[in-house]
Amino acid sequence: MSGYVPGEQPGDPGIIKLNTNENPYPPSPRVVEALRGDRLRFYPDPVCRELRGAIAKLHGASLDQVFAGNGSDEVLALCTRAFVEDDGCIGYFDPSYSLYPVLAEIRAVPGKPVALGPQFDWRRPPRDFAPLFFLTCPNAPTGIRYPKAEIEAFCCGYEGVVVIDEAYVDFAEENCMDLALRLENVIVARTLSKSYALAGLRVGYAVGSAKLIAAMYKVKDSYNLDMLAQRLALAAVNDQAYMRESAGRIKATRARLRTALLGLGYTMTDSETNFLWVKPPAGTAAAALFDGLRRRKILVRYFPGERTGDYLRITVGTDAEADALVAALQQMAEKGGV
Amino acid sequence: MSGYVPGEQPGDPGIIKLNTNENPYPPSPRVVEALRGDRLRFYPDPVCRELRGAIAKLHGASLDQVFAGNGSDEVLALCTRAFVEDDGCIGYFDPSYSLYPVLAEIRAVPGKPVALGPQFDWRRPPRDFAPLFFLTCPNAPTGIRYPKAEIEAFCCGYEGVVVIDEAYVDFAEENCMDLALRLENVIVARTLSKSYALAGLRVGYAVGSAKLIAAMYKVKDSYNLDMLAQRLALAAVNDQAYMRESAGRIKATRARLRTALLGLGYTMTDSETNFLWVKPPAGTAAAALFDGLRRRKILVRYFPGERTGDYLRITVGTDAEADALVAALQQMAEKGGV
Repeated sequence: MSGYVPGEQPGDPGIIKLNTNENPYPPSPRVVEALRGDRLRFYPDPVCRELRGAIAKLHGASLDQVFAGNGSDEVLALCTRAFVEDDGCIGYFDPSYSLYPVLAEIRAVPGKPVALGPQFDWRRPPRDFAPLFFLTCPNAPTGIRYPKAEIEAFCCGYEGVVVIDEAYVDFAEENCMDLALRLENVIVARTLSKSYALAGLRVGYAVGSAKLIAAMYKVKDSYNLDMLAQRLALAAVNDQAYMRESAGRIKATRARLRTALLGLGYTMTDSETNFLWVKPPAGTAAAALFDGLRRRKILVRYFPGERTGDYLRITVGTDAEADALVAALQQMAEKGGV
Repeated sequence: MSGYVPGEQPGDPGIIKLNTNENPYPPSPRVVEALRGDRLRFYPDPVCRELRGAIAKLHGASLDQVFAGNGSDEVLALCTRAFVEDDGCIGYFDPSYSLYPVLAEIRAVPGKPVALGPQFDWRRPPRDFAPLFFLTCPNAPTGIRYPKAEIEAFCCGYEGVVVIDEAYVDFAEENCMDLALRLENVIVARTLSKSYALAGLRVGYAVGSAKLIAAMYKVKDSYNLDMLAQRLALAAVNDQAYMRESAGRIKATRARLRTALLGLGYTMTDSETNFLWVKPPAGTAAAALFDGLRRRKILVRYFPGERTGDYLRITVGTDAEADALVAALQQMAEKGGV
């Protein structure tokens, strides 16, 4: 199977391009108002060479080991199409990112959850569990990073493709990028939505063996990343110092918020992400707290269900937002409820 | 099957949002440099309500009759996943948009071409030909618009879903939008890449019955259109006068270029698109012309193959670009070849 080949997009501005049915005139001035120097009437680079080059350099990978996608959600969806046959299935931990069972449903194959331990701790799935396994690390919504030696031992023996979803890894103490560069069956997925503060831009990427990455390129849409997304993501990736500083501030607030919540009698996992996974004190229902905070114009996330229904997932915002959250929780506790 | 439900994105700026793990700090200043007033750290509207509202208003449709996608290529790809079972197949005309057989390959079902007539003219496919039929009108690469009565008669009796791909319709004398609004099995796909001059932005849309549109929303990626694409596309759609004027200029150049090429002995179809589908004078090979133009830094499109190998597809650019093209062709003819 050979992927769709779009018309050539040459770099030479002297070329008269009459090959891809672009408009010779600029878009509406109302569109142009918001931009500087973009040539939106042209198609973007369908394979994002410049952006992928920067990502490859960042991780010590080669260009053909990097896939750039329309959010890491597209990266994950493409994995379900590239690595799973129609009679296959998709594995993931429970609880984990709630998109995985949806992706299995869309792919029309069974989703196979592996229950995490009592404290949401690591459980090694069998080596032939599923042709594709999504391993979120640090995990969402629990915030927990699994021991790297366990992940490596699992990946080395695993018979299918393991996608290590590192959406939150810039807030963690360790990552698994070296496994993606070293092992034939491992992909690491990253996103610019969290540590790079670009959720609105929809850019994610995958790093893995050239063979796996090529399989993803074969099934992607012809132009999956628009010109602005490519250009702005490149600027963000090339400013690692800024990202590190931003992630550092969030980690500092995370520690501060953690201390405050422990003081209010909350318990929580040891988060290596930009959120806390907290259990309210005995006698306070998580669902009621969720509603109470909402009435006070503070949105957190609540996931009903046997494993998750006793917890709230609270994003680490600014210090001021954390203070407002703690004050609201305190006020609700003093009122003897919510 | 219920699609993935992302965390809430409320409109109220007074709300403290700690529910979707966004970054509380802005992205790198290098990213922000290119923008005015965007809040890229937030997720975009996953279902593009504002943009779809504008499109719905434009076509006299309701919101649930409109799908907004990451280019019309995403719209077409989603149709192959929403309307074709694993044992199905996908129909389209030959020659037509070269993406269709690729989409069939990606979907892992047979692609079933219907040969157009000797002059690339309309042929009605059987009513049970395929669960999904891509009908490009005006057609690419031939530029021809099919008789609307024929299209309507075909759609009315057809047992599957018909996607009328109107990528070029703003350069044509008639469109089929009313069929999409009226018939349960018809979708009209449009793009902002041509008449709106936004190929770099990757925005396309579909209009059809609420039932078909809902099926597409169930299989799309969670956030398929980024914030900038939504905002800029909205500005473009809301400036119909500009688009009409741009398309009008291209149609004027099309007529001018047509006359010039006829004068050089070229023959061509009656194009209602922003390109011409031209056959060089006897004794001149299209492939050789393609190479000769390329050496002169003029890119056109050549599709090898039995039905297409005698033709060139030439985008209608500006008057100056058309003049340069004609001068190059004339020069090559005078040299007795290419």
